Amino acid sequence: MLDVDGFYSKLGGTFKPGVISEVVLAAFELMKQGKKIISLTGGSYDPKSFAFDEIRTIFSEAPTEAWQEMLQYGSNRGSSDLRAELSKFMEKSGIEADADGEVLVTTGSQQALDILSRLFIDQGDVIVVGSPTYLQALAAFKQFGPEFSVVPVDDNGMDTEALETEIKKLEGKGRKPKLIYTVPSFQNPTSVVLSQDRRQRMIELADEYDFLILEDNPYGYISFEGPMPTPIKALDDSGRVIYFSTFSKIVSPGLRIGWVAARREFVTKFSVAKGNVDICTDGLSQYVASELLMRGVVDRQILKMIDVYRRKRDLMLEAMEAHFPEEAEWNDPGGGLFIWVEMPEGVDTSDMLRAAVERGVGYIPGSNFFVDSSIRNYIRLNYSFPSEDDIVEGIEILGEMLKAQV
Amino acid sequence: MLDVDGFYSKLGGTFKPGVISEVVLAAFELMKQGKKIISLTGGSYDPKSFAFDEIRTIFSEAPTEAWQEMLQYGSNRGSSDLRAELSKFMEKSGIEADADGEVLVTTGSQQALDILSRLFIDQGDVIVVGSPTYLQALAAFKQFGPEFSVVPVDDNGMDTEALETEIKKLEGKGRKPKLIYTVPSFQNPTSVVLSQDRRQRMIELADEYDFLILEDNPYGYISFEGPMPTPIKALDDSGRVIYFSTFSKIVSPGLRIGWVAARREFVTKFSVAKGNVDICTDGLSQYVASELLMRGVVDRQILKMIDVYRRKRDLMLEAMEAHFPEEAEWNDPGGGLFIWVEMPEGVDTSDMLRAAVERGVGYIPGSNFFVDSSIRNYIRLNYSFPSEDDIVEGIEILGEMLKAQV
Repeated sequence: MLDVDGFYSKLGGTFKPGVISEVVLAAFELMKQGKKIISLTGGSYDPKSFAFDEIRTIFSEAPTEAWQEMLQYGSNRGSSDLRAELSKFMEKSGIEADADGEVLVTTGSQQALDILSRLFIDQGDVIVVGSPTYLQALAAFKQFGPEFSVVPVDDNGMDTEALETEIKKLEGKGRKPKLIYTVPSFQNPTSVVLSQDRRQRMIELADEYDFLILEDNPYGYISFEGPMPTPIKALDDSGRVIYFSTFSKIVSPGLRIGWVAARREFVTKFSVAKGNVDICTDGLSQYVASELLMRGVVDRQILKMIDVYRRKRDLMLEAMEAHFPEEAEWNDPGGGLFIWVEMPEGVDTSDMLRAAVERGVGYIPGSNFFVDSSIRNYIRLNYSFPSEDDIVEGIEILGEMLKAQV
Repeated sequence: MLDVDGFYSKLGGTFKPGVISEVVLAAFELMKQGKKIISLTGGSYDPKSFAFDEIRTIFSEAPTEAWQEMLQYGSNRGSSDLRAELSKFMEKSGIEADADGEVLVTTGSQQALDILSRLFIDQGDVIVVGSPTYLQALAAFKQFGPEFSVVPVDDNGMDTEALETEIKKLEGKGRKPKLIYTVPSFQNPTSVVLSQDRRQRMIELADEYDFLILEDNPYGYISFEGPMPTPIKALDDSGRVIYFSTFSKIVSPGLRIGWVAARREFVTKFSVAKGNVDICTDGLSQYVASELLMRGVVDRQILKMIDVYRRKRDLMLEAMEAHFPEEAEWNDPGGGLFIWVEMPEGVDTSDMLRAAVERGVGYIPGSNFFVDSSIRNYIRLNYSFPSEDDIVEGIEILGEMLKAQV
């Protein structure tokens, strides 16, 4: 007999199906079997808004040489056309990154997180994260055994005073952070924005205390009340900011197109690692991404999604106002895809999840966004994926269940 | 000033651009600039043989629901349609793998190597590899610090008698191998085939000495003189064989579609790891792959590529016969994409590479396929990518250079 578990590495042994894969996929499976499950879970795209006519046109117009390039192995760094387009695209938000040396295409920004983890994190290195923060970033970092320092996130994003206090506390112990992970614009899960003066302060602290900043910006473009907040990378004079973004929230998550903008030496390291990881990013999607940028479809799609998601956000807020218990508190997100709900302490939203899925509604329990998973009285609700009718119905069911909890 | 190198992890610090990225990409760059470089390097696809008419048709015929699925996030395991098609595809070569629990789609098979490495390899674990073997597999494994045990590869593949001797030697030191890595059919770089009785013996040894077998099968389908050799996985009763294959050599490397077939518990581990690594494989390519399999295009394409590559192999062998020095020795590959050339000891093909590229020909020096990189008198030549004219011209130039070395 085979002792299956005996073969795993220490890391492999820790890999267990998480809430996202279990609940989100269970919900998808039930949906496929015909049972109606309203998914307020992952940050999926509005299914009716995909630019597939434009993509079909791109493929029908592609010349032979384009097919020969997209179906062949490509550069570890990504196609030069796509890198050039991404460089221009970032320029509009104040980021200067040379297409040839400072930009690299990844298979979604999750891959960028994974590669960064192996390039920079050794066992015991100190990584500073906000509390709460994006669960799959924590999962990527954890693979390489860092220690997390946790800094609170308030209505203006990560508290930079608390950050400095934390750094000094570390200094007292003879230690220092190597990297700060931040999602500054419409953060996941809270949708808060790091204020401009805190962005400036974060850069100053990085220079003063010699650490790197990982700026993860998937949501910034989905800004309901003005232009995208200026990225930290646009303020970066010393090359300490590593910038990640992705097509997932603005065009399509199925395309698996993410990118990195960083100083030349770091991008070279990413490109070597990329050779070990998957050699190159998908050719069809790189071609589509490049053409969509060139044809102005990405810019138009962003404007469209802002409208679609603003309307869905409004609907969800309205339904919450009508159906949620008065003990529940939440913010009014100025962008992004999520509403973050605080319930009174004692309410356990992780425990409640199975019953909710059986009632036909899925959500992500807040515990998944904390390094300390004993914090269990929050819920993250997604409004980008569900239809308008489902938003109303889902919130009604959830409201009823939450009222029974308080 | 930023001490850039001070930020890398121990692993990150080891990542340096390798010969593949340096020479192959340098060659591609020079080609783009108009200089003619004949590439006999990577295992790229014949550029004229891509099935792009069929792919264009697939996209033009895709219904709305298909677009909504391919542009959305998908399952960590891959789309259920593609998994079902892959299961049927493998059945034809005697492999039984349940589409729902024993198959997982990866972003090319390089990603499968990377995920396997983190799932199974701890610092100091013993991994057995053939000598020579595939360089990017070694690179993936090395990330997690194994020790390599090296077993010679002869005209019938990995020598299983030498393998047992090596295992016993390890036993004497109180150690045992965890995993054997093998490319049994038209191995990279030598193109040899592991004989059927050695395949059987390898399975017996795995049972007897309790290790796993990683069977990597990208080339088996490109078989010039008969059907694909029966995969080891088809002989696997105890669930010790983890099987990898890919679209890269049969349909397109740009699609980035690889897959894993393994026992249920291992596939579950792969799916959790996949969530950390890139969430899911590209949706456009998964849809195309599934449709190409369903429409019989993959089977037709395999037959076509066998013809194309057989002709190119013959041309290359003929040119080598005419132009290579008589001190050079090589095999006549029955399949796959490569010819493996042995020069007399003392000839250093790594040293010769730069001059060759300047003369307009790229190849991969043999030293890259050995754990012991001091073995420097071999060359791997690729015949799948270059045109027929370039094969003749490239071999002529290389022959001239090699004659000057002996």
